[in-house]
Amino acid sequence: MFMLFCSRGFQVTGTSSAAPPTSVVPQTNTETTGAAHQDSRLLAHALRVLAMDAVEVARSGHPGAPLGLADAASVLWGEFLRHNPADPAWPNRDRFVLSNGHASMLLYGLLHLTGYELSLADLKAFRQLHSHTPGHPEYGRTPGVEMSTGPLAQGLAAAVGMALAERLLAERYNRDGHVIVDHRTYVIVGDGCLMEGLSHEACSLAGTWGLGKLIVLYDDNGISIDGPVSGWMSDDTAMRFAAYGWHVVPDVDGHDLQAVRVALQQAVADPRPSLIDLKTIIAYGAPLKAGTAVSHGAPLGVDEVRAVRDILGWPHEPFVLPEKITQAWDARPAGAAAQAAWQARMMAYAAAHPELAAEFERRLAQRLPHEYETVLEAALGQARQDARPMATRKASRLMLDAMAPSIPELIGGSADLSESNGTEWTGSRSISAPGQPANYIHYGVREFAMAMISVGLARHGGFVPYAGTFLVFSDYARSAVRTAAMMDQQVIFVFTHDSIAVGEDGPTHQPIEQLPSLRLIPNLDVWRPADRLETVIAWQMALEQTLRPSCLILSRQDCPRVTPQDMDLTALRRGGYILQGNQDGAAAQLVLAATGSEVALALDAAAVLRRKGVAVQVVSLPCTQVFDRQSVSYRNMVLPPGVPKLFIESAASAPWYRYVGGCGDVLGIDSFGESGPGAAVLAHFGFTMDHVVNRAQALLAEGG
Amino acid sequence: MFMLFCSRGFQVTGTSSAAPPTSVVPQTNTETTGAAHQDSRLLAHALRVLAMDAVEVARSGHPGAPLGLADAASVLWGEFLRHNPADPAWPNRDRFVLSNGHASMLLYGLLHLTGYELSLADLKAFRQLHSHTPGHPEYGRTPGVEMSTGPLAQGLAAAVGMALAERLLAERYNRDGHVIVDHRTYVIVGDGCLMEGLSHEACSLAGTWGLGKLIVLYDDNGISIDGPVSGWMSDDTAMRFAAYGWHVVPDVDGHDLQAVRVALQQAVADPRPSLIDLKTIIAYGAPLKAGTAVSHGAPLGVDEVRAVRDILGWPHEPFVLPEKITQAWDARPAGAAAQAAWQARMMAYAAAHPELAAEFERRLAQRLPHEYETVLEAALGQARQDARPMATRKASRLMLDAMAPSIPELIGGSADLSESNGTEWTGSRSISAPGQPANYIHYGVREFAMAMISVGLARHGGFVPYAGTFLVFSDYARSAVRTAAMMDQQVIFVFTHDSIAVGEDGPTHQPIEQLPSLRLIPNLDVWRPADRLETVIAWQMALEQTLRPSCLILSRQDCPRVTPQDMDLTALRRGGYILQGNQDGAAAQLVLAATGSEVALALDAAAVLRRKGVAVQVVSLPCTQVFDRQSVSYRNMVLPPGVPKLFIESAASAPWYRYVGGCGDVLGIDSFGESGPGAAVLAHFGFTMDHVVNRAQALLAEGG
Repeated sequence: MFMLFCSRGFQVTGTSSAAPPTSVVPQTNTETTGAAHQDSRLLAHALRVLAMDAVEVARSGHPGAPLGLADAASVLWGEFLRHNPADPAWPNRDRFVLSNGHASMLLYGLLHLTGYELSLADLKAFRQLHSHTPGHPEYGRTPGVEMSTGPLAQGLAAAVGMALAERLLAERYNRDGHVIVDHRTYVIVGDGCLMEGLSHEACSLAGTWGLGKLIVLYDDNGISIDGPVSGWMSDDTAMRFAAYGWHVVPDVDGHDLQAVRVALQQAVADPRPSLIDLKTIIAYGAPLKAGTAVSHGAPLGVDEVRAVRDILGWPHEPFVLPEKITQAWDARPAGAAAQAAWQARMMAYAAAHPELAAEFERRLAQRLPHEYETVLEAALGQARQDARPMATRKASRLMLDAMAPSIPELIGGSADLSESNGTEWTGSRSISAPGQPANYIHYGVREFAMAMISVGLARHGGFVPYAGTFLVFSDYARSAVRTAAMMDQQVIFVFTHDSIAVGEDGPTHQPIEQLPSLRLIPNLDVWRPADRLETVIAWQMALEQTLRPSCLILSRQDCPRVTPQDMDLTALRRGGYILQGNQDGAAAQLVLAATGSEVALALDAAAVLRRKGVAVQVVSLPCTQVFDRQSVSYRNMVLPPGVPKLFIESAASAPWYRYVGGCGDVLGIDSFGESGPGAAVLAHFGFTMDHVVNRAQALLAEGG
Repeated sequence: MFMLFCSRGFQVTGTSSAAPPTSVVPQTNTETTGAAHQDSRLLAHALRVLAMDAVEVARSGHPGAPLGLADAASVLWGEFLRHNPADPAWPNRDRFVLSNGHASMLLYGLLHLTGYELSLADLKAFRQLHSHTPGHPEYGRTPGVEMSTGPLAQGLAAAVGMALAERLLAERYNRDGHVIVDHRTYVIVGDGCLMEGLSHEACSLAGTWGLGKLIVLYDDNGISIDGPVSGWMSDDTAMRFAAYGWHVVPDVDGHDLQAVRVALQQAVADPRPSLIDLKTIIAYGAPLKAGTAVSHGAPLGVDEVRAVRDILGWPHEPFVLPEKITQAWDARPAGAAAQAAWQARMMAYAAAHPELAAEFERRLAQRLPHEYETVLEAALGQARQDARPMATRKASRLMLDAMAPSIPELIGGSADLSESNGTEWTGSRSISAPGQPANYIHYGVREFAMAMISVGLARHGGFVPYAGTFLVFSDYARSAVRTAAMMDQQVIFVFTHDSIAVGEDGPTHQPIEQLPSLRLIPNLDVWRPADRLETVIAWQMALEQTLRPSCLILSRQDCPRVTPQDMDLTALRRGGYILQGNQDGAAAQLVLAATGSEVALALDAAAVLRRKGVAVQVVSLPCTQVFDRQSVSYRNMVLPPGVPKLFIESAASAPWYRYVGGCGDVLGIDSFGESGPGAAVLAHFGFTMDHVVNRAQALLAEGG
């Protein structure tokens, strides 16, 4: 019997276990460090058996990566990660992101063993409907899971966002003698994450930003699903990351606890972001499947699992853990102490810097500042007064100019289109400029990373990120928009140049299907305002919508003012409203419904139709998601059933038929755009008053 | 007067022009090489003035990059590029791709000057509707434009595909003494291309594949739209590409013709893919705007244009080119000679290897082999006989097993999901395995590059590429799918694991909006077959559809056989058809319409409804795009107007309402999925027979 104290957290008593046979697991230097490490390995083995057993029970899952990563994970979580299992929301916790999310059972094992509210019963329910242990980690489903991961490299990019959040908050709030923001962000990535282009975008930025508290552990096991990666991944990854300005710890034996420990110490000490290249064996310990791709995504099978038990020297039944193991893993005492110490620092900070402390806590609580109402009223007042035709991207920029100075949690950025997107407001401070703290990010031409870093900023807490590019390039970032929606994160996507009216840049730059495609993503509010006032309302709704991301779809070209000066703003906030009722109060014969720049076209056509004796109702639908959440009676008032309707939007038409009912038509675009001056292109595709009038009359002639 | 002969193509007489002042353009070593180079510079200046003048006329465009790149482009096109302006389709031409497509006027200037069918009048119509000189290069619109570019890094990734195509065709067809495939692929990229993640994916693969005939010229001007890139791009790009196994020529003065020439010579000589790092000045020659971001995307203005003329020593009016310049640029004689020589080699080759020559020409002509009909009939016969429930991904794999050996132009691949996607057919030869020539590509986890490389393979000619990943990860590749559609390229995307029935992997892996979102992309046929027979038809249609890309959306789980053994295949080829008419021949009271795995559910529900006395018609709609191209009368027969319809598809519902008319309902999914066994997840979302029956009865009770 002996007792081992590790540098932080771990404490274990027990007897040495049998060394694994060298044919299955590699020789490490455990001999040189003696029985203590053999014993620490038992902690890792607990992770291994939990993972392989849960996968067996589920008859589904990914055992290979957990078996390969258990050693490194046990050092990281046992000795380095500063967290409090009793409070997964502790603001100053270290963040841990499992970017190779298919290794979810590794994370669930760590959460269970360190004392998060995740029971053995939860582990046994791995991958079952409504369990707390879904197939891939899902934020909001499991205490301690920071990110929904699975789509590769997204966790890595979000972690860059979290590390950036820590830096920016530290720069804004820490004061001499009062360090209240000071944590690291750890990420585990697999080969797949590093093959993905997203890893390039995100890690290049992390290098440029010098995010020294970001530490990436690379599970360099040389195997991906198709087999040994050498056939499709011959990068010198260490050189690649050195080219990004990272600190690289190369060739670390991922099964040598001391080597992992030393690498982590080096990473912690280095001022640059660190990549630890862990040479590991996938499915470590599995006599037949170790080092092979077959262990990646399927249960090992009863026989192999039994053999692993023998090899690891793990005599216990599935889901039975000796108390000495569970005690050694328990991170709650250390976590509570760490959080209590931080809480004491916060108290002292609040006494010394009450305003900063209040702002810090307000931001973490996702409450807008109390000046918000005032500046919003002012912005609305300005918009009401402004009769100028204006591009909605410009209206958005004016909104930011008016409001952003009062909302320090707003952190903007653009993928190299700051001026075009109108995202860089007057007085914002760029992260790429000297002088701190920054609140604006020049992301370079990296749409996907921008979007995922924004998700990371939001998930860290303390920020309301917004991110701009051209609407057509939302395609590059689309999977990140989806992840933001899936994770209920408040990220505001500013997508400008929203139609063929972009003009000369041509079909590669003219969105057609992007707008309706974004509307198909669940849990995402997509706003396409028609004028300055609608733009202010769209921003208001996006700023107040903390439960999901929003998109602001904005025009490049000037749009005439369409809302009357005395506009009822409540209607605008409903996402769809009657902009112009039939003027004599009788029931309308026809509804013209439009969004964004096409609303003015609808108004013009309505005027002509009225002169021809048609009773027209004009509807603006800036956000169909919000509109859909209104009552049936309200929606039926705006879009009365049985009345012929013509929907006008310069985008793919199909999804509008949901609102047409049996009776109506859609003027949209179902082919790619054309290069030419905007007005010429619009005319080519039929977005002229005459054409709208003709289509409306044809619709009425058909009997609706 | 003097005469200059360059190594290939160029011949110019003239007087030396004034050296540009050093304050605006950098000191190069032109002095050391004397007047000859001054004169070659005139050729570059012709490109410069055409570009800036065309942008002025259009009042729109991007002058900065053409001015900066003109020197390097004149060396590349004048001395290295082997092409024949009279035949832009010459199979053995060198490929040139302008990945930074906004520099389109550089390309149009090159095409005009070297003798392509692109007149000065065309240049003057730059960016006008229906001109041959759209804002960004568009394949099919302008002779000599190989790729539609603009979305950054896509041209680079497509060029990797072109270089791979050359290698694979050379390996298959060249024989001792008969080299018929032997060309290079040149690409110009900007900072933006290299910031994009796609560049990582594509260039990593190019390094692994050792594509020595790929030569990338990097316009390293240090400026992107937001300003000097140092704030957001601090990569050591040379080191990064060395990490990919590339040959890098660093620090080349992009305005020193001899330095560019030497760099290109080194690149040509090196067996690895080459990156030439050209240090250039954006808007070179513009006294106020050179070296600044303001020159990127807007006309220089009259005064600045005049100043550039003075500085360059270019006295001529806009669009006036001295004959000595046009003669020196004319590449038609050399091009005709080069193509004639190749044609002679082809003749000799055809004599020596008639079968290979015939196959080569057949492939370039996009004609399927004559065995195709036979193997297709056999595949159809097998599918007809096979009553087993089968995952459509497995049916797809069987189809490939049956047909691929007879179709050498088929080149498959998967983003590290070969087995799951069923893309790696028995007997295929992987590019990552020894032994050649390959016809299967392990792309690694690189969805976007896979899709763009496939576009490049198709655009090169000689290949019908197909590319597999999970449907949910089509989001990563979405912009490439769009580009394939915009360019009318035959690429077959194999997207498997097509619904929530994926089960345990959970919402990150369960597509919801992807299927309807793909259907919104113009010019893309999206097939979601229901069983093995429908899968064979989908493959047939995709193989025969040379005018656009197709998607095959395939199930992970087994699907019951739904088509009868005596199925009329003509109906299947219409994209939508009556699978089961109302059985007594009377008009149906209800249509149940479904796709893919939900067709069996519709049949089951129909059986129950019929027992309840409801006259039901069951419709299968494997491809709505093809269905939409059928006659109105056919479509009205399949989906009769006025008859209530219930559409069933485990995906976002909105776009189906287009087919509902006024009367019907959609059973879809408008939230994210859930992790759990597939059957449990399907039941959770209402994809059960009972629920379909209930929804159908509710619909009928509402009066349709």
